[in-house]
Amino acid sequence: MTDLVLSLDVTERASALRIARACAEDVDAIKVGYPLVLGAGLGIARDLADLGIPLIADFKVADIPNTNTLICDQVFAAGFSAVIAQAFPGPDSVVACVESAHTHGGECYVVAEMSHPGALTFFSEGVPEAICRLVVETGADGIIAPATRPARIRALRDLIGERKILSPGVGAQGGDPAEVAPLVDGMIVGRAIYGAADPAAAARVYAPYRR
Amino acid sequence: MTDLVLSLDVTERASALRIARACAEDVDAIKVGYPLVLGAGLGIARDLADLGIPLIADFKVADIPNTNTLICDQVFAAGFSAVIAQAFPGPDSVVACVESAHTHGGECYVVAEMSHPGALTFFSEGVPEAICRLVVETGADGIIAPATRPARIRALRDLIGERKILSPGVGAQGGDPAEVAPLVDGMIVGRAIYGAADPAAAARVYAPYRR
Repeated sequence: MTDLVLSLDVTERASALRIARACAEDVDAIKVGYPLVLGAGLGIARDLADLGIPLIADFKVADIPNTNTLICDQVFAAGFSAVIAQAFPGPDSVVACVESAHTHGGECYVVAEMSHPGALTFFSEGVPEAICRLVVETGADGIIAPATRPARIRALRDLIGERKILSPGVGAQGGDPAEVAPLVDGMIVGRAIYGAADPAAAARVYAPYRR
Repeated sequence: MTDLVLSLDVTERASALRIARACAEDVDAIKVGYPLVLGAGLGIARDLADLGIPLIADFKVADIPNTNTLICDQVFAAGFSAVIAQAFPGPDSVVACVESAHTHGGECYVVAEMSHPGALTFFSEGVPEAICRLVVETGADGIIAPATRPARIRALRDLIGERKILSPGVGAQGGDPAEVAPLVDGMIVGRAIYGAADPAAAARVYAPYRR
């Protein structure tokens, strides 16, 4: 199964709801980040969850274990189905997110690699591979790895077994859905859908790559 | 100058305001994290800022540059004076936070080291030192380094010159204010103040170490 995940990177409640409603039939999940939650309040999650689409909190959670627990408990209480955490604070911080997720029947994904230019400073020299091992050890549900580097997705897949891969960067950032969809469990499309004049029509361009 | 920074790690608006008001005369800044902002909304910043105390957004910002910009622009528009970012996403992500901070007349601090057990997995083998170099290169205003390891604070101080050090872990986590205060620009006290039966009296225990 490859899901189509809409990255809803807008900051205003009204546009978020308008775009989400328009695309609801053609996407499998919606990813929401802090810019929208800070602008619209955490309550936006309940409004979006009412559309019946699973919600992913892309909060790149990156604090000490106790704070991560407090953040994730609020994430799942608000109606999210999954959370995205950073691995760099270490295994105990990731475990805090995983335990909160699983207690609430949700999932926790960990960023294994990022695709912006500066990411290579620290996400290099075996670090993504170490993160994949940490994902297996902590019982996390999968990784985030960029659609712009399919060869890296293949390499990391070998390290995580049956766990899932969600992949941002399809569309505006250059990731090719035809190439990436067979490699991942979720292809994440942002600007190419939410920035389109007709987001529903744009979502339908990517929907055929769902499996 | 060594400031006393209250880490206001509660999740409810009413207790946050009660504790902040009680301590307002004895602390130099208040640090607020996502657990409180998710619980009370970003508007809590304006309520706290009205007390006339500088506010630090301890959001451990850790995303791609564009998302970091969107987060930090909202942080400063909400009334915060400073933001805390993670370095791991790389220099361009940190620069996004620094530019947002300086555009708004605020400051950006970068986590150089964390003190929970799991932190040693990735914050090791020269990584804190590399982060300090990144802080200097990106024009960030200072680092976060744990009060529980004064020797590390001294080592990192040599790498950042005149930039500031804010140091969590004073009090309940074991950091000794008498030892740490002379080494840092801000000693951050959390539970020992906000968890006390009389937070104002607890703040006054630490106030004499301000310089």
